[in-house]
This record gives sequence, structure tokens and C-alpha cells, in this order.
Amino acid sequence: MTELLPNFAAGRWQHGVGLGTELLDPVLGTALVRVDAGGLDVAEAFAFSREQGGAALRAATYRERAAMLAAVVKVLQTHRDSYYDIATANAGTVKNDSAVDIDGGIFTLGQYARWGDALGDVRALRDGDAVKLGKEPIFQSQHLQVPRHGVALFINAFNFPAWGLWEKAAPALLSGMPVIVKPATATAWLTQRMVKDVVDAGVLPAGALSVIAGSSAGLMDALQAFDVVSFTGSAETAGIIRSHPAVTHRSVRCSIEADSLNSAMLLPGEGPGSEAFHLLVREVVREMTVKSGQKCTAIRRILVPAEVYDAAAEAIGAKLAGITVGNPRNEGVRMGSLVSRAQLATVHEGLARLQEQVTVLHDGRKQPLLDADPAVAACIGPVLLGARDADRASMVHDLEIFGPVASLLPYRNLEHALALAQRGQGSLVTSLYGTDDAVLAQATVALAASHGRVHVVTPEVAAAHTGHGNVMPMSLHGGPGRAGGGAELGGLRALDFYHQRSAVQASPAVLAALGL
Amino acid sequence: MTELLPNFAAGRWQHGVGLGTELLDPVLGTALVRVDAGGLDVAEAFAFSREQGGAALRAATYRERAAMLAAVVKVLQTHRDSYYDIATANAGTVKNDSAVDIDGGIFTLGQYARWGDALGDVRALRDGDAVKLGKEPIFQSQHLQVPRHGVALFINAFNFPAWGLWEKAAPALLSGMPVIVKPATATAWLTQRMVKDVVDAGVLPAGALSVIAGSSAGLMDALQAFDVVSFTGSAETAGIIRSHPAVTHRSVRCSIEADSLNSAMLLPGEGPGSEAFHLLVREVVREMTVKSGQKCTAIRRILVPAEVYDAAAEAIGAKLAGITVGNPRNEGVRMGSLVSRAQLATVHEGLARLQEQVTVLHDGRKQPLLDADPAVAACIGPVLLGARDADRASMVHDLEIFGPVASLLPYRNLEHALALAQRGQGSLVTSLYGTDDAVLAQATVALAASHGRVHVVTPEVAAAHTGHGNVMPMSLHGGPGRAGGGAELGGLRALDFYHQRSAVQASPAVLAALGL
Repeated sequence: MTELLPNFAAGRWQHGVGLGTELLDPVLGTALVRVDAGGLDVAEAFAFSREQGGAALRAATYRERAAMLAAVVKVLQTHRDSYYDIATANAGTVKNDSAVDIDGGIFTLGQYARWGDALGDVRALRDGDAVKLGKEPIFQSQHLQVPRHGVALFINAFNFPAWGLWEKAAPALLSGMPVIVKPATATAWLTQRMVKDVVDAGVLPAGALSVIAGSSAGLMDALQAFDVVSFTGSAETAGIIRSHPAVTHRSVRCSIEADSLNSAMLLPGEGPGSEAFHLLVREVVREMTVKSGQKCTAIRRILVPAEVYDAAAEAIGAKLAGITVGNPRNEGVRMGSLVSRAQLATVHEGLARLQEQVTVLHDGRKQPLLDADPAVAACIGPVLLGARDADRASMVHDLEIFGPVASLLPYRNLEHALALAQRGQGSLVTSLYGTDDAVLAQATVALAASHGRVHVVTPEVAAAHTGHGNVMPMSLHGGPGRAGGGAELGGLRALDFYHQRSAVQASPAVLAALGL
Repeated sequence: MTELLPNFAAGRWQHGVGLGTELLDPVLGTALVRVDAGGLDVAEAFAFSREQGGAALRAATYRERAAMLAAVVKVLQTHRDSYYDIATANAGTVKNDSAVDIDGGIFTLGQYARWGDALGDVRALRDGDAVKLGKEPIFQSQHLQVPRHGVALFINAFNFPAWGLWEKAAPALLSGMPVIVKPATATAWLTQRMVKDVVDAGVLPAGALSVIAGSSAGLMDALQAFDVVSFTGSAETAGIIRSHPAVTHRSVRCSIEADSLNSAMLLPGEGPGSEAFHLLVREVVREMTVKSGQKCTAIRRILVPAEVYDAAAEAIGAKLAGITVGNPRNEGVRMGSLVSRAQLATVHEGLARLQEQVTVLHDGRKQPLLDADPAVAACIGPVLLGARDADRASMVHDLEIFGPVASLLPYRNLEHALALAQRGQGSLVTSLYGTDDAVLAQATVALAASHGRVHVVTPEVAAAHTGHGNVMPMSLHGGPGRAGGGAELGGLRALDFYHQRSAVQASPAVLAALGL
């Protein structure tokens, strides 16, 4: 049998008492390691984090906690090669795709270390300026942000075992909240290993960081009033978490990032020969293929002027035809596998459903795999779908296929294009491609209400823009409605979730004594 | 039969088709008016608000919407006397208590009119400054706040039919979101009348403000992804709202203000002769009696050094003995009635339960009423409870009695006092009374994590402080945990709830074209 990975809870390594769940190589089909959380004393784990971890973190200043994050960065950089090995084996990703997860996580941690250092040696943050509460300034209101006295539970998705941990843990730890991460089972190995390296290095206080891999049973039950829970995953599980008494009756703060039918839009008037057209095509192909389309921010819907539809289908299809798919260990492979055969089956099922309403413009499903057995590997080539009547093809606006799949949709005019984008009912991101700054700005404001991020690509930023699907720590990550309503990152805005805002009403002398 | 008040929904006045629920005078027991929402086309009402009201409000700039709020203020001022009459009849409050609701609401509206005017003639707000996303400034991230394209549903509490509407509607309307208010049935008359006056005056666009009185059936079902719901009331109903599919599955944003066991704390070392002691006593008596203690922010637990316990009991009891209770129309009456006989019964039941663990230090239950029939009126005199072992008297930290009731609790030292305050598991407000600025500041930061507001009373602010329970629009209103986790007011911070934050990633030229 393979190694059973221990959990780190209540300040010690603990093996689950069950046989565990086997983690597989999605390309070779081989067993790698096992995870199990059976028999764990969850209440003890949470109490230890909340009391030991929380107290130790809050005893430190923001600058001191930022230094802890910087120390974590160093630890992770030391072990970076082993993370790539685990990603290749357990996620089936090519090196560039593993980098999005691993280096993306380390980069985000480094940013928060830098931002946190600038917050200085204080243990609470001023929120705005003091304002007087009457005609005279003798009695004033000063808002503070103070660390919540609780645990931050992360229930994470399979597609980002590294970045998904650190993009949440960086602001949480900087805020003084201890973290318990429950990684998705399929790719839990990388999360567990990173936590292990950090724990072994002793750069965080006891109880500051725990990992529980395997079943999530009992985790939500352990949450108390000042804890928070952050979930990334399916809308279905999101509904279960939001319906749990911890959230409905104990006011546990909850941040959700769920489904998202992100769109990319070529603005009206941009023909097939335009630079904007080529920028759209390049970005669509990149988004469809990076991490085999297993990104919550990936482009799912491509909106183009009706007269450009055929040219776009041809240009995107031509580029997709050049994407080699197979074993990520083979240097000729551009796109690795999906995370599991189960995900592969889900993608095939989704495609079968969508095909009732759309046509297939480029079909990578039958393309030969490089160095991989189609009977074993969770690989699939990219698939471009299309519907000439974008309004009637209702499923493309509702069904998120978590793989290298996108749908091309024609629109009549800008108003129609905006309405189609909004058919996603709230998305993480939309990207716009054009040259008219005024029209781009108009579309941006119109789409901002239903999107957590609007990414605008103009020819002048062709080489500099950071990518439709790339989540930068400076920018908000999270969208309203179907996307779950969560709010992560966005620089120091991310700290809000882990803080309690409080209004202090007092004399200027007492406010001065706060020392902030 | 009494008049059946119409609802204002889908831009027209509509009577419910049922017999309705009778609203009563809680002092005289007489029937006043009826409300009913039976047969209302709720879906139509929400669609009209969302589409007509939302579009009209968003077409206006912040400055223009601020001018609408100023116009509402003028309308309400014109009819102010009639609101006092309704409050006296339907809420049983003395004039000073009605003012907290009516003038408090108008004051809050006026503040938002002023703050909104300063936001200028724009239709979206910049959120922070642009930051570059790479080494060069050619590609940047600028966060925006834009109005959500939905309806704001308010499910309100009986104790503030005026302020409860306007403290929420002011930031919502200023943000460009149309409002549908569902007032608590017992005191719905004042809310309905105010909406009627504003609608009749024609100072808001069609669909901007609606009122549905009676049953809340179907209201939550009508909510869609970009709508928001704000609830003030019991923890039990809060749980139902949070468990509704609109929230759990459609990501409807939800703000809750529920139970709160607020505390007042006399700091260590302040003896019975100290000014801080007298300030505490004065504030406790005020908080217990204003609106007959029917304020979510009222002091429920009084924490004093153990050696001061007897003196505090005597001083508070002596002042309570001077409070006349009865018919608010009699000028000799200081404290009117509770809102209903049902509430009176609930208070009596709560007292009976608490008495298992506490002793009665001052009992107003038997005191004669002025100008009111104890067999008819919902009046009760103030009751001061006490427990010498504050830790063992667990119920005083858990059970909110919504009437003129508070419990006196002794503590051993500051650490013990802070721990007792936090036994409320998250409260709206705590107030501190003392003279040592450093200790007050230390206690403030310690309590900020579990309180939405910390109100510090020192001798120098004796005449200027705004009151423990008074909610100022400049300061956050809402607390974590048991208090529901909501966040209202706090100046322009209140606008966040009605906005979507979105990160725009673009060239400086596109960002400039936003015109913000």
C-alpha cells in the first residue's frame, strides 16, 4: 500500500484511523499516496488553533506576521522542485501550468509579506479618520479593524492545491487568524507537503497552520461565532456550506467562490484583420488550454460581432489544432491531463449535454495523445463549440464545463453583447478586446456590476497585460451571483474578511491612547 | 372595521385581499388600522422595482440621488407632527422616545444627503488608487464600486418603524438601489404613512420605494442574484432568512442584525463616589428606560468591580424608582408602554426564567401605572436584576429580554470583566466608564473584536457623548456573532452593501476614460 499522509492538527501529526483514499496519477493511473481524516478529534484541533494559534498570532504585530510570511516564502522556495514533481504526478500538469499554481502561490505570499510589512508594528488597524460626533470635536468616532478571535477554515478546490492555500492563508495569517486547510482530496498531496515543510521549518507559531486531508466530516460543526469559512468549489457544495447551522445560526462569516461562466468580448467594429481580433484569439486559446481549462477564471464564452463569427471560429480552431496533449513529462506536450478520470467523464457528459444546443467548431476529443494511453489517462484535447443564436443556446450561459472547452457566440451590437455577458448571472471575470478607449470604458462600467474583475486588452498592453484568467493579488478575486459573492485578494482589501470592524466613540485623548 | 392600509407595490397602491391584521394601541387596547398583503403579485412588485426603479436611480448621479434624499427629508419634516401622533397611538411611546425613531430617521437621511452630495456627479465610485500590475505602469488595476442591479429588501423590526426604514433606505437609495420595505406588522402604520407621504410628494422615481405590510410570504422567494436583503429582528427569524435558497443558492447578499446582550463596564478602581460611577448609573437608567428598553443597543448587562456592586445596585435602583410609567399622553409619564401585550408577556416570561439564576434588585413590575389600566396597557416598570456570581448566572449572557430590564454583575479584575463582556458572544455595543485613558484604550481594543461599537465615557465627555444606545450614522451599527454579523451605517461604509466592487485591469488611457 502507498504511504498514508498524516494530518497536522492540534499541533501534532496525526494519521487517520481508516484505510484512506488513494491519490492517483491522472496520466499513468498509478497510486501515489493516501489521505484519511478518520478518528481525528476535530473539536480539539479547532480549539488548539483558535486558542494557541490565534493568541500567538495576535501577540505579534502586522510587521512581525509579515516577516512570518516572508519566512514561509523562503521555505517554499527551498523545496520548490519537489512541488513540481508532486504536481506532475498528482495533477498531470505541464511545467508552465504547475507554475501557475506553485509560483503563483509563492508570489502571492511574497506580495502580502511586503504589504504587511508596511502596516508596521501595530496590533490593530485604523479604518479611516476620526470624525466628530457633534458640533465640537470633543467626542469622536474612529473605526478600527481588529483581528477576529477565531479560526479560518479553508475548504479548497482540486485545481489549485498550492495557490488556493496561500492566496487565502497569506491575508489570514497576516490578519492574525490561524488557518485550517481542508484540501480537495484528489490533489491534497501538494497542500499537505507544503504545510509539512512549513511546519518542519518552525517559522510559524504552534497552531497557526493545520491541514486536514480526506473527509470534511465534522469540520463545519466545529465552527464558532468568530470563525470564518472560505470555500472554493461547486455551487452544490457551496449551498450545503451556506445552509449549515454554523453559518445560518452562529453567524460564521462565509466567503464562497463557485461556478462562473466567464466571457471574453471582442468589441464592435474589430474585424478579423484587427490587432484586437488577434489578441482575443491568442487569449482564448491560452485560457482554454492553461491547466487544461481547469481554472475558475477561464474563458467559457467568447462574444464576437456576428460578422466576425466565422473568422473567429477558424482562427481559434487553427491554433487549437496545434496544441499537443498528453503526458506532461514529455517535453513535446503543451497541455497535460485533467485532474482525474472522474473529471474527464464529467467533461464528456457536459459536452454531450451542450451539444444539444451548439455545434462543434473544433473537436480535440479524438486527437491522439502524446506519450499517454487514452484508456488510462485523463487527457482530452480542446473543444471549441459555437451557436449562431447566442440567446437560444441557453445552456452555454448556465453550464460550466471544467475543462478545455469554450463556446463562440455572435452578437448584434454592444447592447446585445453586454446582455449576453450578463446571462452568466454574475461571473468572476470578463475581458474586453478593442481600441476605442471610450467604448471600452463604457462597457467596463456596465459589466462591473456583474463581474468581480474586468480585464481590458488594448494593443498598447499586448505584451504587458497579465492575462484574462491570471489572478493577481493586487486585484479582487470573486464575483457576485452565480460566482458565489466572495471577495478574495485585492491587496489589503483581503484583510477585511479576517477582521472585525468596530467604531470607537471616545474623546480625542482616549483615541490617542490607542496608539494607532 | 378600521381602515385597511394599502401597500405600495409595482408603482401603485394595492389593498390586500384578506381581512388583514389589526394594529392596536398598546396602552388603550383600541384598534387603529389594518394591514394585509394577501393576493399581492410579489413577482411583479420586485420586477417593477428592479427594472423601473433601479434603472431610474442608476441613471441619476450620486449628487442627484443625494438631492432626492434631501427632498425626502423635507417631505418628512412637513408631516412630522402626524408621525408623532401615530407613534403615540401605535407604539405607546412618550414624545422623547418617539423622537429617537422619527427625528433619528430624518437626521440619518439628512446626513446621507450631505455625504452623497460630496460624491459628485458620477455614476460609479473609485475604490482606492490605481496600482501597476507589473514593473512598468502601462497596465494597472483600479477598483470600482458600482451600484448593484437589484432590489434591496428590508425586513424590519417593530421597535423602529421610522429610523429602521431610513437608516437602511438612505444608503440604499444613495447607492442607486430601489427599496422594498416589509415593516414589522405591529407598528407598520408609521412606516406605511412615511412611504405614502414620500410617494405622494413625487420626490423619488417610480419603483424606487415600495412598502408591503402584513405577511412576508413570498418576499424571499422573489429575490434574485443581485438583490440584497437586510433583516433586523430575532435570531430565530434570522436563521430562517439565512437558510432560504435565495441566500444559500442564489448568493443574495444578506445583512442581519439580531440579538445582542450589550454591556456597560465601570472600569476597575472607580468607586461609588467617582464621576465615572455616576456617569455609568445615569447611562444605565437612560438605556433601561428609553423606548422601555426596546432597543437592540440597550444595556443588558452592567459590569462593575465587585466592591462597587452594592452601591451600584442602590444608586441605579434609586433612580429607577423615580421613573413614572403609563400613558404617554400624560405629561407626567416618563416611560410609555411596550409595543404590545404579547411583548409584555414575553418580558414577564423572560424575567421568570432569569430569576432562576439572579435576584431582583429593583422591581418595577408592581409599580402603579399613571393614567393606564394594568389589565389593558402593555406597560411595565423597570426591573434591575443582579447576580453576585456573574459566571454562574449563564442566562444573563444568553437571554435578551426586550424591555426595561438589565442585570448587574460584579467582576474581580479587568481580565474578568473583559471575559464577561465577551460572554455575549458578539454584541452591537459596549460602553466603558473610567478616567484612565491608557486602560480605557486597552479595554477598547480587547473588546473591539467582539463588538461593532465601543463607546467610551470619560468625565470630559459627560455632556458631549452621544449615548451608549444611540446609533449615530457616522459609526458602524452591527456586531459579530450573536449580533448577526451585519454592518450598517458608518458613514459611506454603508454604501458597500449596495455596491459591487470590481477590479478594472487596463491601460491608464482606458482608466482615464472611465471619467471617475
